[in-house]
Amino acid sequence: MAKSLESEHPIKAYGYAAHDTTGTFSPVTFSRRVTGEKDVRFKVLYCGVCHSDLHYAKNEWGVTTYPVIPGHEIVGVVTEVGSKVEKFKVGDKVGVGCLVGSCRSCESCSSDCEQFCPTQTLTYGVPNFDGTQAYGGYSDHMISDEHFVLRWPENLPLDSGAPLLCAGITTYSPLRYFGLDKPGMKVGVVGLGGLGHVAVKMAKAFGADVTVFSTTAAKKQEAIEGLKADHFINSRDEEEMKAAASTLDGIIDTVSGNHPIVPLLGALKPNGKLVLLGAPEKPVELAAFALILGRKIVAGSAIGGLKETQEMLDFSAKHGITADIELIPIDYVNTAMDRLLKSDVRYRFVIDVANSLKAE
Amino acid sequence: MAKSLESEHPIKAYGYAAHDTTGTFSPVTFSRRVTGEKDVRFKVLYCGVCHSDLHYAKNEWGVTTYPVIPGHEIVGVVTEVGSKVEKFKVGDKVGVGCLVGSCRSCESCSSDCEQFCPTQTLTYGVPNFDGTQAYGGYSDHMISDEHFVLRWPENLPLDSGAPLLCAGITTYSPLRYFGLDKPGMKVGVVGLGGLGHVAVKMAKAFGADVTVFSTTAAKKQEAIEGLKADHFINSRDEEEMKAAASTLDGIIDTVSGNHPIVPLLGALKPNGKLVLLGAPEKPVELAAFALILGRKIVAGSAIGGLKETQEMLDFSAKHGITADIELIPIDYVNTAMDRLLKSDVRYRFVIDVANSLKAE
Repeated sequence: MAKSLESEHPIKAYGYAAHDTTGTFSPVTFSRRVTGEKDVRFKVLYCGVCHSDLHYAKNEWGVTTYPVIPGHEIVGVVTEVGSKVEKFKVGDKVGVGCLVGSCRSCESCSSDCEQFCPTQTLTYGVPNFDGTQAYGGYSDHMISDEHFVLRWPENLPLDSGAPLLCAGITTYSPLRYFGLDKPGMKVGVVGLGGLGHVAVKMAKAFGADVTVFSTTAAKKQEAIEGLKADHFINSRDEEEMKAAASTLDGIIDTVSGNHPIVPLLGALKPNGKLVLLGAPEKPVELAAFALILGRKIVAGSAIGGLKETQEMLDFSAKHGITADIELIPIDYVNTAMDRLLKSDVRYRFVIDVANSLKAE
Repeated sequence: MAKSLESEHPIKAYGYAAHDTTGTFSPVTFSRRVTGEKDVRFKVLYCGVCHSDLHYAKNEWGVTTYPVIPGHEIVGVVTEVGSKVEKFKVGDKVGVGCLVGSCRSCESCSSDCEQFCPTQTLTYGVPNFDGTQAYGGYSDHMISDEHFVLRWPENLPLDSGAPLLCAGITTYSPLRYFGLDKPGMKVGVVGLGGLGHVAVKMAKAFGADVTVFSTTAAKKQEAIEGLKADHFINSRDEEEMKAAASTLDGIIDTVSGNHPIVPLLGALKPNGKLVLLGAPEKPVELAAFALILGRKIVAGSAIGGLKETQEMLDFSAKHGITADIELIPIDYVNTAMDRLLKSDVRYRFVIDVANSLKAE
């Protein structure tokens, strides 16, 4: 028989868990494993609230095992290291993103693309390598093999930097992989939420000329004045879309709601690339001609490998990139989820874990 | 008032034209322009019958101006050159593919991608640079600016090489552009028709391990024994498709009928590329997750630039690549179109123009 949440491991831990498809969070006591030779244990300071946390809490992707303790934008300070840990020492500031394990030997792992490893361990919501459940950063502390722990750059804020561990790498990686990271590139960003606003900052830091596409005309001021985007297009305005035809080298589409993509393909130059980061519920409809006439690409991308995530953090520190956040205590998380559902946040909630999570 | 077909230009020409949406061909007398300084005039020897010819003849893409004289896989022998022609002389064997004009100055033209030039002139079915209609290779002779004329390699057969000017470049170009041209690459080819059978030959010549996907189990022998493909998968067989999961670096999809692409995406490794060459009537349906989990790509591709087309012809000559053809007299073209519609050809009709087209 499976051991209880509190006793399956020897180290006591506590956090906030959702227990069923209502997705309502409440405090929970659980346990974490002893420190292995390559393990880094750290006290959680801040944890971003990603939309995936909400999908998992409500089992909207059908893969959740309850109770689920989400959180994969985790920043903290090292409290203990295993005997063979090489990169970290007690007191170091560190981060953990969406992955805490992979096979380390497959073709993907060997090429620093742990995000594609078929036996990867996500930070929460799935079984860990030892068969016990993985729990995320809505908790007092974390433990992970050092390979999956990121060195936190000195001058990168801990709170507003936390969302970079998911939203940052998810936008940085496709800009790099699809060659949209060169100065002067014309880059579109569709949607101005948690991912979109970071995508704008990343693209600007690479030197791109950035066009924000949104169906909310009111976001123009936020995009241009707040985020320093160069252009704003109301994607429901046919005239504006027509004027943008064949102008962009690439588009980062962060929208997970159902939306038409053929008009976006029209805004691409020949050889242009449309990268989907969100997964709309309904299948995307695609007229093959829209790709064929211009050798265009529709691609998908999710997070990035560990090496690239470290590179992204260092790049963000160098260019002063953080997320725009609203810092919340952990007992506000149910309200935060309600607001997230209504896109009522500019642009990311971050939980002030260390200052608000108390042992029961 | 527009001049008549016979008199709009001074040089008499004759060919086979379709006059309405029945797509029925009959002999026609028309005219071609005088030889400009950069023009190459050539006697047509052979012309391949591409499925596009049928689409245009019946106005299935809604863009045909009648009468239409199709043919864009044209091989011939030079009969006259303009005063400033540098690359060709009378007696040279030459080819013309899908393009006879472009602006020569835009970003696409400047990067040898004339196929994306917004003011390109297709070989037939559209107005030429002088406003008169462009007519293709189902005719006694052709004329084109030398930039759009290909040098025919010495040891490349004229008849079975003709289809390379469309089917060859259409399959060669995406294999090159998407990095599927390296030895050991695992490449899938979907559909075994005019394009598909050439795609197999091109991929094999690059040193790929080639898997043919077809819904016609009977094509296994053709694929493996006839075309030297390494593997054959009946794409309607779920077990076979499951066994192929995550095995391929790229897939060249030549099918223009409606068909599901998500199962094909499943056969791709992470970073795998699915390139659509055919344009199904209905929009392609795409689950974004199928792209996102693995950073996969769905792309489109059409023909290639002139420089790359010459490279493809030279590559084909070197590797002994030709199309498998059925040589027909031009008065067989209506029957050939009926058979093409039923996929009743292995794999390309080529019209023996010089030996069968007589002046009326």
